[in-house]
Amino acid sequence: MAQYDQEEQWQILQLAHRYALAVDSRDAALLAECFAPEIEVIGPGFALTESVAEAIIAGLKARYVWTQHNLSNPLYRVSGAEASGVINCVAHHIEEHQGSYRMRSWHIRYHDRLRQLDGVWRLCQRRLDVGYESVLPAAAIPQ
Amino acid sequence: MAQYDQEEQWQILQLAHRYALAVDSRDAALLAECFAPEIEVIGPGFALTESVAEAIIAGLKARYVWTQHNLSNPLYRVSGAEASGVINCVAHHIEEHQGSYRMRSWHIRYHDRLRQLDGVWRLCQRRLDVGYESVLPAAAIPQ
Amino acid sequence: MAQYDQEEQWQILQLAHRYALAVDSRDAALLAECFAPEIEVIGPGFALTESVAEAIIAGLKARYVWTQHNLSNPLYRVSGAEASGVINCVAHHIEEHQGSYRMRSWHIRYHDRLRQLDGVWRLCQRRLDVGYESVLPAAAIPQ
Repeated sequence: MAQYDQEEQWQILQLAHRYALAVDSRDAALLAECFAPEIEVIGPGFALTESVAEAIIAGLKARYVWTQHNLSNPLYRVSGAEASGVINCVAHHIEEHQGSYRMRSWHIRYHDRLRQLDGVWRLCQRRLDVGYESVLPAAAIPQ
Repeated sequence: MAQYDQEEQWQILQLAHRYALAVDSRDAALLAECFAPEIEVIGPGFALTESVAEAIIAGLKARYVWTQHNLSNPLYRVSGAEASGVINCVAHHIEEHQGSYRMRSWHIRYHDRLRQLDGVWRLCQRRLDVGYESVLPAAAIPQ
Repeated sequence: MAQYDQEEQWQILQLAHRYALAVDSRDAALLAECFAPEIEVIGPGFALTESVAEAIIAGLKARYVWTQHNLSNPLYRVSGAEASGVINCVAHHIEEHQGSYRMRSWHIRYHDRLRQLDGVWRLCQRRLDVGYESVLPAAAIPQ
């Protein structure tokens, strides 16, 4: 039983990482593959329930030139083909500001509900438990 | 053997995440469940050996309005029912300062010793190898 | 098959964590153990292909008094005895500046290629996909 759970928890963690890679790569098709049809993503001042992948990517593109969503501390519980749990995220957003860049870093805890479709875990609901942000000057790393 | 170790390492990692969730949720009961009876938590200027869970929560409550302990880079070695290893932590602490907030971020490496009680991993000792901190203005993320 | 992959992915993740521990501990011998003979590490303005472990440690020692490489979001694909994938890193570098310290934090995505030698995963190539950095005042955490 524990072994089974661990395998499923690992698959769920990989899903969470694919979500972040899709968002940071601005890849709406990859992001849509992370979602069950009933997906809803609920955050401060928004509740996305239609064309969610496209809406997330469009929203980020409109505001930020680059993002990095770093995940940690996953704790998911699996019950058959359903799962729920939490994972921390520090979402670093680069925005242009007075001819330069600054990094707006959000400290979030995601509350997730998931289910398996054809043996693949998908997100049904992600709720953002938002905490605090910091904003500081940033620069592109010289190549 | 490797498989067995991986399963145990995963359980230990989940324990590390429960510790962080308990601390950031200020849940002394959940935190106490992470500990073996002989627990000691040793950091800069303190060594907690009695009522450790309560002392940690009370200490954080006294100083900070919110915290997020983000873990990464776990490397644990399992030997039978005992284990030891390290895990990195960036501990973000929000404190009130001159009518506003600031975020004090500690960069730590935890050195942990653990053992199994009734098949469940518990922390016996956590020693904080403290590095550097940064302090910067912060704000609650608008809801 | 999925189980097998998960086991291998876990071993690769442990390798990524050993790399970071070696770098942050400035342990060239431990770092060299992470590498296949053909290792190359390619970043902004550099391509290390000879004495790579020693070069990395020497480079960090020359510039920084302390570092912490925090990894997250691993996504590796295993194909037999070879693997490739990505992992995020926020590399915090402490440098001396005008009699004080500051923290230069690089937001990176590593693109890795790996292979098994005698059943042990080793890095063949690490390419740094560099993003943005922030620089802010820092202080040693009081002991």
